Amino acid sequence: MEFYLNENESLHDLNLKGYKIIQSTKCFKFGTDAVLLAHFADVKKGDSVVDLGTGQGIIPIILCARTNVKKVFGIEIQQKLYDMAQRSVLYNNLSDKIIIINADLKEPIPSLPKGEFDVVTCNPPYKPCGGGLENEIFEIKAAKHEILCNLEDVIKCGAQLLRFSGRLCICHRPERLCDIICLMRQYDVEPKRLRFVHGKSNKAPSLVLIEGKRGAKAGIEISPPLIIHNEDGTYTNEVNLIYGREQTNEK
Amino acid sequence: MEFYLNENESLHDLNLKGYKIIQSTKCFKFGTDAVLLAHFADVKKGDSVVDLGTGQGIIPIILCARTNVKKVFGIEIQQKLYDMAQRSVLYNNLSDKIIIINADLKEPIPSLPKGEFDVVTCNPPYKPCGGGLENEIFEIKAAKHEILCNLEDVIKCGAQLLRFSGRLCICHRPERLCDIICLMRQYDVEPKRLRFVHGKSNKAPSLVLIEGKRGAKAGIEISPPLIIHNEDGTYTNEVNLIYGREQTNEK
Repeated sequence: MEFYLNENESLHDLNLKGYKIIQSTKCFKFGTDAVLLAHFADVKKGDSVVDLGTGQGIIPIILCARTNVKKVFGIEIQQKLYDMAQRSVLYNNLSDKIIIINADLKEPIPSLPKGEFDVVTCNPPYKPCGGGLENEIFEIKAAKHEILCNLEDVIKCGAQLLRFSGRLCICHRPERLCDIICLMRQYDVEPKRLRFVHGKSNKAPSLVLIEGKRGAKAGIEISPPLIIHNEDGTYTNEVNLIYGREQTNEK
Repeated sequence: MEFYLNENESLHDLNLKGYKIIQSTKCFKFGTDAVLLAHFADVKKGDSVVDLGTGQGIIPIILCARTNVKKVFGIEIQQKLYDMAQRSVLYNNLSDKIIIINADLKEPIPSLPKGEFDVVTCNPPYKPCGGGLENEIFEIKAAKHEILCNLEDVIKCGAQLLRFSGRLCICHRPERLCDIICLMRQYDVEPKRLRFVHGKSNKAPSLVLIEGKRGAKAGIEISPPLIIHNEDGTYTNEVNLIYGREQTNEK
């Protein structure tokens, strides 16, 4: 396979070890949420990871840049995104670490044995089916809305892939917190770590990051809030570090 | 009944409309948690409220000071605390609004009809049975540990007392969040509002405040964090307001 860019595609620099990722101006850009989730996930040296609904492969690439992960499998149902992710892996010479699989997470995936993975990550579609603008193009719609999979599909699939004590890391809208917690418990993944992301420190959170552990005992640790902007609108030091930016107080 | 103070008891000024509460230096002082819960509870004009495990009656008295509540029933199983609460009600001339009942919330309480109350509050014992210092005196132990009732008893009792759409407001240790959420759902009380209390803005929370609504649809609102101390150690404006203090930047 040779590397190429399609029309409307560009390479976005991740400021992480020189890695770049293909984005499409027309179709789909990766969001802050995926970046924050990749940093929230506690991936240890030698871990095998599955990223469900990997999109253009942003989470696998960040994990390769920031951790000593052994292997990351990115599952993507949409052919166009799968194809973009594959070419990003190729561009970054990460084919020995990242395997992108074009598959539906609601069905068994033969190349991924159940009960064997250390970590599963997922930045799932947030919106219930039916909401949103009807004229959105399908790729964006399916990535944002629960058309091709819902929260239960994601948690069920993640729970099945994890080894005992393996970690399922999800980001979602804060309003879904109770659904996430109850579904994790239903599939024997105990929520163990929770962090809310706030635009500013005195605002309600816009995102929740949650880690569950398969087969663990009850008892969750709530981390300090992750704040995106300082009072003056500049990025906080923590966010600048996550984005590999110099602390220039850039707005 | 005449008002009196026992040995080791004193009257503590609540800085709220002149109300005072009896505390015992030997036995039991009310905590910040109860005060924060009383302010978190969304009590509307004319509401009938039950406070489970009312202790010396701190929550009923604050609700009478700050809201247009119609009636507050404080349930307390411990005779000594029940007696203190009764005398505090008497001292503040609140006998027409607050009824203290000496009863076990695990049993039906004949004077409290099921399914009729607008709000139930509870600052329950936090620690599992068996933990803590063995030489604590029993009143303190029972208020802090799940000896006389556990989280499920409290949520079950609250759910039974509430009318449809009535609100159950609980404070607890953040580590119990998942238990609270799943038990509320088990008893058809949907968690609708959540607020974490942090000693400082960059610290993990020390308390969770949560409101569930009987029979409501899923979807929770996470409030901005409630911060106790500013960076310099002074109380935040919000906490000074809750405590009825002048904003003196008192540490």
